[in-house]
Amino acid sequence: MPNFDELRLGQTATLGKTITEADILLFAAVSTDSNSIHIDAEAAAESIFHERVAHGMLSASLIGAVLGTRLPGPGTIHLNQSLSFRRPVTIGATVSATAEIIALDPVKKRVTLKTTCTVAGKVVIEGEAVVIAPNPCTLDV
Amino acid sequence: MPNFDELRLGQTATLGKTITEADILLFAAVSTDSNSIHIDAEAAAESIFHERVAHGMLSASLIGAVLGTRLPGPGTIHLNQSLSFRRPVTIGATVSATAEIIALDPVKKRVTLKTTCTVAGKVVIEGEAVVIAPNPCTLDV
Amino acid sequence: MPNFDELRLGQTATLGKTITEADILLFAAVSTDSNSIHIDAEAAAESIFHERVAHGMLSASLIGAVLGTRLPGPGTIHLNQSLSFRRPVTIGATVSATAEIIALDPVKKRVTLKTTCTVAGKVVIEGEAVVIAPNPCTLDV
Amino acid sequence: MPNFDELRLGQTATLGKTITEADILLFAAVSTDSNSIHIDAEAAAESIFHERVAHGMLSASLIGAVLGTRLPGPGTIHLNQSLSFRRPVTIGATVSATAEIIALDPVKKRVTLKTTCTVAGKVVIEGEAVVIAPNPCTLDV
Repeated sequence: MPNFDELRLGQTATLGKTITEADILLFAAVSTDSNSIHIDAEAAAESIFHERVAHGMLSASLIGAVLGTRLPGPGTIHLNQSLSFRRPVTIGATVSATAEIIALDPVKKRVTLKTTCTVAGKVVIEGEAVVIAPNPCTLDV
Repeated sequence: MPNFDELRLGQTATLGKTITEADILLFAAVSTDSNSIHIDAEAAAESIFHERVAHGMLSASLIGAVLGTRLPGPGTIHLNQSLSFRRPVTIGATVSATAEIIALDPVKKRVTLKTTCTVAGKVVIEGEAVVIAPNPCTLDV
Repeated sequence: MPNFDELRLGQTATLGKTITEADILLFAAVSTDSNSIHIDAEAAAESIFHERVAHGMLSASLIGAVLGTRLPGPGTIHLNQSLSFRRPVTIGATVSATAEIIALDPVKKRVTLKTTCTVAGKVVIEGEAVVIAPNPCTLDV
Repeated sequence: MPNFDELRLGQTATLGKTITEADILLFAAVSTDSNSIHIDAEAAAESIFHERVAHGMLSASLIGAVLGTRLPGPGTIHLNQSLSFRRPVTIGATVSATAEIIALDPVKKRVTLKTTCTVAGKVVIEGEAVVIAPNPCTLDV
């Protein structure tokens, strides 16, 4: 895993995941959000989305994964996250979560990243993360 | 569920959930974040948290739940969310997610809510949400 | 459940399971293996398999099940297992796991079984297991 | 991810996971192995293990994870695996799965690894894996 001094402006990392019915069911269980738009195909067909959509926070959870496992990686401490939900994510869509370093604060060891989730090249979530980069002296992950 | 005209400044709703090992395991599955700080008790004991902690986005997912199921409730469209992660959440902690209406825009039917997650009265996440309140004419949930 | 003296060379038992997206998601959680070949349909389409495939150890887990629940059955102690992964298993495939007794060691109460997983009659995993047959005097399952 | 030419004899990678009740429940669901030794605390108390133990194949699944995500890493094709189950794994144990390269076949691009699972420094599973190392020209993971 990189430590602060190895990070550079413009560095990016991406991970992808196909959103399945099982993801939505398990996310509903963990979050307690069992809104019919997510789990009731008949009610969802009557909604403005016309079909079941994934929880916005489910797609957002991939941002936590890309920060915590790829860039900056294990040992990262997530301080702040902004999220703008631009489009719904339907079952079967593959969400790509990308983090790009846009600011580095060497005094506080803080990193600001642009965080974007896309489906088929279209933005579904955008926002920014502020994290503390891992310190390899204190974290062995 | 309330529609926009029934919403009032200062209205609040809360839901609580105890975070279990099973939640962390399932959240790791859905998010793909199987960082050792979440799933490896020995590695976590060596970290700055001294024990396994829940994914920050797991606690944040309860905010989606309180907005989508309580206030404003079913049919709500989540537009924006800011999150500041203040303290870690350990296994066995009960997270209370509260949403409080702090602004109402009757033209755009938008609602701004202060969103707070606490454990034993201490803030673990704070931030704000902007949502479109449900329209009971088009949504039957 | 049979004890050692009731076992015969050539005895077989089989169980089948259809591999679903939910199985792959849960197996990824338990094993921590969220490799894109298993969970990202777009990345998997670019791979040599052209689609998502199940974890090899997921199919192999059915061998543990047939040994521990059918033949020899509850109380069996699994000592050794060899596995040759012959073909990938895709979502929706039904895996049949078969165990056939090929050697009996009455002194050590050890049983050797040929263990085979097939999909649509084609071998996907083959290998051998060595187990200690259950002792009905000490185990009540 | 390393390709074949970057691999060296003696290279190792390890990952750790604490085995929880939730892991055992989900592994039982996926594998269909709901033997009482794994899920029935009262029956397990009467067994030779005196308490519930994890499925042997559950611990073995961490070997698949270390091969597929760390060494050789994404794109690895698992060909053969031998497993000797040495000790039971109880709930709460942290299993460390280690893979160490012990042979390299540059003609067939095959890698042989010693694969070991330990709990608190004691071997619970040992064996060997044969894999094809990832080919970065054909796999983008």
